[in-house]
Amino acid sequence: MSKLVIVGTVAFDAIETPFGKTDKILGGAATFIGLAAALFKVDSAIVSVVGGDFPEKYLDLLSDKKIDISGVEIIKEGKTFFWSGLYHNDMNSRDTLATELNVLADFQPQVPEAYKDAEIVMLGNLHPMVQLSVLDQMNSKPKLAILDTMNFWMDNALDDLHTVLKRTDVITINDEEARQLTGEYSLVVAARKIHEMGPKYVVIKKGEHGALLFHDENVFYAPALPLEEVFDPTGAGDTFAGGFAGYIARTGDTSFENMKNAVIYGSTLASYCVEKFGTERMENLTRNEVYQRLQEFKNLTQFEIELS
Amino acid sequence: MSKLVIVGTVAFDAIETPFGKTDKILGGAATFIGLAAALFKVDSAIVSVVGGDFPEKYLDLLSDKKIDISGVEIIKEGKTFFWSGLYHNDMNSRDTLATELNVLADFQPQVPEAYKDAEIVMLGNLHPMVQLSVLDQMNSKPKLAILDTMNFWMDNALDDLHTVLKRTDVITINDEEARQLTGEYSLVVAARKIHEMGPKYVVIKKGEHGALLFHDENVFYAPALPLEEVFDPTGAGDTFAGGFAGYIARTGDTSFENMKNAVIYGSTLASYCVEKFGTERMENLTRNEVYQRLQEFKNLTQFEIELS
Repeated sequence: MSKLVIVGTVAFDAIETPFGKTDKILGGAATFIGLAAALFKVDSAIVSVVGGDFPEKYLDLLSDKKIDISGVEIIKEGKTFFWSGLYHNDMNSRDTLATELNVLADFQPQVPEAYKDAEIVMLGNLHPMVQLSVLDQMNSKPKLAILDTMNFWMDNALDDLHTVLKRTDVITINDEEARQLTGEYSLVVAARKIHEMGPKYVVIKKGEHGALLFHDENVFYAPALPLEEVFDPTGAGDTFAGGFAGYIARTGDTSFENMKNAVIYGSTLASYCVEKFGTERMENLTRNEVYQRLQEFKNLTQFEIELS
Repeated sequence: MSKLVIVGTVAFDAIETPFGKTDKILGGAATFIGLAAALFKVDSAIVSVVGGDFPEKYLDLLSDKKIDISGVEIIKEGKTFFWSGLYHNDMNSRDTLATELNVLADFQPQVPEAYKDAEIVMLGNLHPMVQLSVLDQMNSKPKLAILDTMNFWMDNALDDLHTVLKRTDVITINDEEARQLTGEYSLVVAARKIHEMGPKYVVIKKGEHGALLFHDENVFYAPALPLEEVFDPTGAGDTFAGGFAGYIARTGDTSFENMKNAVIYGSTLASYCVEKFGTERMENLTRNEVYQRLQEFKNLTQFEIELS
């Protein structure tokens, strides 16, 4: 089993979907990643920052999942990062209603001493220089550095993104972002170009259409489970990344064959995440439920054709 | 092995894509379905109509593939159905530049005597009343009636479409059409509603995102092979249907488990179809090439997770 360091936001979200709306609830990339990874009972730590307004109970929730939060800085006089979004009827597009950086604006991540030898580093969606700072604090090059990012950083910090990509082993990115980063419409060609930027493994997330894992000439496709309804997509991508990183940390195996399983676990957990608002479903998800849905994934994708 | 009757257009297409354009070439739903099904060396017949302008060599091409064309009526004084389309850069959307119905306007399908006992009937995209007429000509209810349709008939002949759907076992339809037919965004819910309209099996084609097969509470997902480039999508959906129908006819097995394989074969053949303009790739495709790509599909989708 490998140690896992997670850097990312711990935040407040306010969400509106066709099914309802929430007040400020627990959110943030590192929160979703941590909750997903916690299902694998790995040694994990979150590196993040919150304000004095952040409820103790939310920190307790993470601690109770055995996530080390000594790297979550609390700035008493500051306010926690806040994001608010409105999802449209198709659930595939959303409007950002508010983004208040607050304490995140001057975030200087501090990796706890006990985690500077972690073999797996999960760089959640943040400014590329913050992601880079975490890599710089590690005692040595981690066995696997996984990076998630978004179009905002391509628009506003592309050079920095390229710098951190050179030191990244796995990137998780959505299809539109892969196209933006490379200027290529074909995801096969886009994955190859991203590979040349650094990451040996490229995971392209396609939302309801599943996810693709590329490595050299190999491709693996994990569909998304066809769901009757998606209640709230918030955190699905982070949950996917957390499931991926958690499974890799648990097994300590970074082979392509094992990454296939990691992608399936990521998809499985993401399919649960979207069933309720925010982190609600992930807070109470059991390993038995995970196994049950893994079986559904097998039924969904496995077939027997005799090749003669 | 079961006999297969295919009704659909045999036509001229003129296609323009970002990679080039063609003059009038061989096209039509029944053509693509027939060429795909021919790879399974099944007893198949096409029921269609062409004009006096239709080249002998195109008919010979179908005959050479052992497709019975005695049900392809030739109206000497008429002109063959013609469709022309322009694909946009993303290859997912197209403009229809011309649709000349010509001899198709008064098409009265005639199922050859020798095929009135066929167990598998593939109703290619046509007016629902033409599809119904083929079912009416069969000696008895076929073992499996497969229907392909499109949004045009939902807009213009919805009642007739519902009539033929009641007598259909399998429908193949794309995602947008499934949503239009049911008014449901969720494909899971849409499939259930279509099931209530008649078809026990619902295949929803999602283009580059693959295809879903629904039956009662069971779902199967066949991804599309991630391709470096799609040269010409024309006929991909018909080729998918032809591969599906051909495999079912070959095996004579209409179980859900076997339909999974049929969907995989359909996806495999469709992935070849789009590599060249029109029918060009399908005309020369070999069974060895098919097996090779089936192996790629296995690598793409099969995984080994121990569930404990």
